Amino acid sequence: MDSVLLRNCRFVVTHAKKRVLENVDILIENGKISQIGKSIKGEAEEKIDCSQKIIMPALFNAHTHASMVLFRGYRDDQELQTWLQDIWKVEAKLKPKHIYAGALYACMEMAKSGTWCFVDMYFEEEEVANAVKKVGLTALLGCAIIDAIKGWDLERSKKFIKNVKGSENIIPVLAPHSIYTCSEETLKEVNEFSKEHSLFKTIHLSETRKEVFDCVKKYGKRPVEYLHDLFFLDEKTVIFHGSWVTKNEIKLLGENKVSAVHCPVSNMKLATGGAFPMREYREQGVRIMLGTDGACSNNSLDMFREMKVAALLQKWFRWKGSEVKAEEVLEYTTNSPCACFGLNSGSVEIGKDANLALLDVRHYSLRPLRNVISNIVYSATGNCVSDLLVRGKWIVKDGKLVNLEEEKIIEKMEEAVEDLLGEEK
Amino acid sequence: MDSVLLRNCRFVVTHAKKRVLENVDILIENGKISQIGKSIKGEAEEKIDCSQKIIMPALFNAHTHASMVLFRGYRDDQELQTWLQDIWKVEAKLKPKHIYAGALYACMEMAKSGTWCFVDMYFEEEEVANAVKKVGLTALLGCAIIDAIKGWDLERSKKFIKNVKGSENIIPVLAPHSIYTCSEETLKEVNEFSKEHSLFKTIHLSETRKEVFDCVKKYGKRPVEYLHDLFFLDEKTVIFHGSWVTKNEIKLLGENKVSAVHCPVSNMKLATGGAFPMREYREQGVRIMLGTDGACSNNSLDMFREMKVAALLQKWFRWKGSEVKAEEVLEYTTNSPCACFGLNSGSVEIGKDANLALLDVRHYSLRPLRNVISNIVYSATGNCVSDLLVRGKWIVKDGKLVNLEEEKIIEKMEEAVEDLLGEEK
Repeated sequence: MDSVLLRNCRFVVTHAKKRVLENVDILIENGKISQIGKSIKGEAEEKIDCSQKIIMPALFNAHTHASMVLFRGYRDDQELQTWLQDIWKVEAKLKPKHIYAGALYACMEMAKSGTWCFVDMYFEEEEVANAVKKVGLTALLGCAIIDAIKGWDLERSKKFIKNVKGSENIIPVLAPHSIYTCSEETLKEVNEFSKEHSLFKTIHLSETRKEVFDCVKKYGKRPVEYLHDLFFLDEKTVIFHGSWVTKNEIKLLGENKVSAVHCPVSNMKLATGGAFPMREYREQGVRIMLGTDGACSNNSLDMFREMKVAALLQKWFRWKGSEVKAEEVLEYTTNSPCACFGLNSGSVEIGKDANLALLDVRHYSLRPLRNVISNIVYSATGNCVSDLLVRGKWIVKDGKLVNLEEEKIIEKMEEAVEDLLGEEK
Repeated sequence: MDSVLLRNCRFVVTHAKKRVLENVDILIENGKISQIGKSIKGEAEEKIDCSQKIIMPALFNAHTHASMVLFRGYRDDQELQTWLQDIWKVEAKLKPKHIYAGALYACMEMAKSGTWCFVDMYFEEEEVANAVKKVGLTALLGCAIIDAIKGWDLERSKKFIKNVKGSENIIPVLAPHSIYTCSEETLKEVNEFSKEHSLFKTIHLSETRKEVFDCVKKYGKRPVEYLHDLFFLDEKTVIFHGSWVTKNEIKLLGENKVSAVHCPVSNMKLATGGAFPMREYREQGVRIMLGTDGACSNNSLDMFREMKVAALLQKWFRWKGSEVKAEEVLEYTTNSPCACFGLNSGSVEIGKDANLALLDVRHYSLRPLRNVISNIVYSATGNCVSDLLVRGKWIVKDGKLVNLEEEKIIEKMEEAVEDLLGEEK
């Protein structure tokens, strides 16, 4: 039996909104948390002293394009439309090997900064799946469906789903890119297939004002209303961004049990203008999650930093310091996404999968060691993470990937970038 | 002669807005940069291989209350006024030893995250000065002047100035806390003394809307106009925050060569509502700098993170992705404050003081290794800093403070917090 005993954990953040334990042991058996308590007796293959550690649920990145780490820093500080065109031009050159190199690097970056699971939308997702497996993370992967690009259709998704069938840590999802790149017919087709096979469908929605205006002009209704009329909205629907929405649209999303992913850093950097209406979503029962978006518009994949900016933005634009609390944004990166996707994780409780981040309390960001959750959300970064366990297996230990050579991952990624961009800046 | 040769530096960010050099050597002699170039010949006491390093000007934190690290995470997520009252209550208990313990910790945190110099406003600034000297940083320190608190007057500042006279790395400044805590008379007195002794004067100004309304109600004019009429505004005046200002006020600040410090994270976290009008300040020739404010309202002292949020906020509230560029915010933490305070630093150029941060290019945040300044501003955190040189002396080496025991600094800080807060959360 695989077992790890985390001894004498300085602090355990059991759950974003519940209590923080002090000086307890955690026993992990066969990938699951089997005991939590003072001085647990019992044999374990591995015993680790955690008297200098905070143990918390590992984080969940609910929206990214992992391979886009390749373009980190490429064409920053431009207007959204110009930027998009530049990115699309270089993306057209991407080959599977580039996508793999980028995704592998992104998985390393996420693992080292405490993220155990992410939702991805890109192409050649088999490559991303291979990277996820190589590093030992978990991911929900969807091949982008875009009408205008040959081969980026539902058939491609079906093929991908077949290809990754049976992978323990890969959950395929459907990923129609947006309402402006997929026709009504495509969306209907995707919707039907999703209901038939009980698959999640993820879509960029109401990220920019332009998108909303274009939709109203074309269909005489706003994006959420449009999708609602297509019977697209249900508990397996996840929208990315959702910043430019009316109260009525939020009501529709809530009634239909849709979940929404907020990406504050990307929205701010791309100057999309709209502010994610967190309060209204909450009030209408829309499940909220957080994501970084691609490292090309963020430019980081660090979910700790994302939590902080999410809280800052809500407080600031509402002129209300108590608008959102640290516990709440932590929930959006732990329990909330796990509840959405039906994963047995997101908290440190008996019976849950042991997806845990260990933080080193000697890091300057974590002191004084009193308000642990505040320190996690407002002070820490992914750099405080010393270790990551996914289903009880060490993925990161003492700040390094276990079983993989980081230098090689970096090198392969740089080669891919060289290949794609050459002398371009 | 003290000398260090940084060999084969992978990248050198010479200046925020100028070019980035590749694979050059930097020779430092007697605390100053004496040569930059390919394969510098010449003897040096110490030769360091920098083929895995980015060398950049160390950062400058233009507004903080260093000792407030003691209250990091204390009373978060509240309204500004409630929060202030809670903080004032516990600050009243502060003794010199607490202030020293907090400041020493803050200096460690700043040093490790690449900051070499900061501007501080607090009380018992002799203690802060001792901490600065102990760690080997540089600071501009001002004893807060508040009419309502006995002993927090200009006389106290005069005493402080006398006490730190002759310290190479301590520059005393005058620090009237604000226009709502200092009377007209006090401000006049401070102003006179400042002009007489050629001292900088720093003041919180137009941070909140309430402050502006109260000023208009009391004096029939807005805060900047009020100070202008007192002849308070000149090239030695530095205002903190300056978010709630009209175009006319900005013009006045520009005409009088005042500098303004933006603290985006603190403003957002405290929900002050106003957005620092960076564009208008720039247009009117007001010098801009960045600061973290205290770790109690931030909750970090990491200037890398501050740069990112500064750029994000400007882009987002202007709905303009190109509103501010990475180079510009880097300028606000390097050259700009050095120019303001007349320090021979802020760039990597021959003759400048060697205040340098070394970043480890193996850190995941810095790859791909192409757009170095973008990576510094949008992706890096202070955790990428491996080494810090201040006037050619190693303050941080391989991620650790040189000559000081970090564990002891942490311990002393925690003791102070225990003493002040006990079981409170």
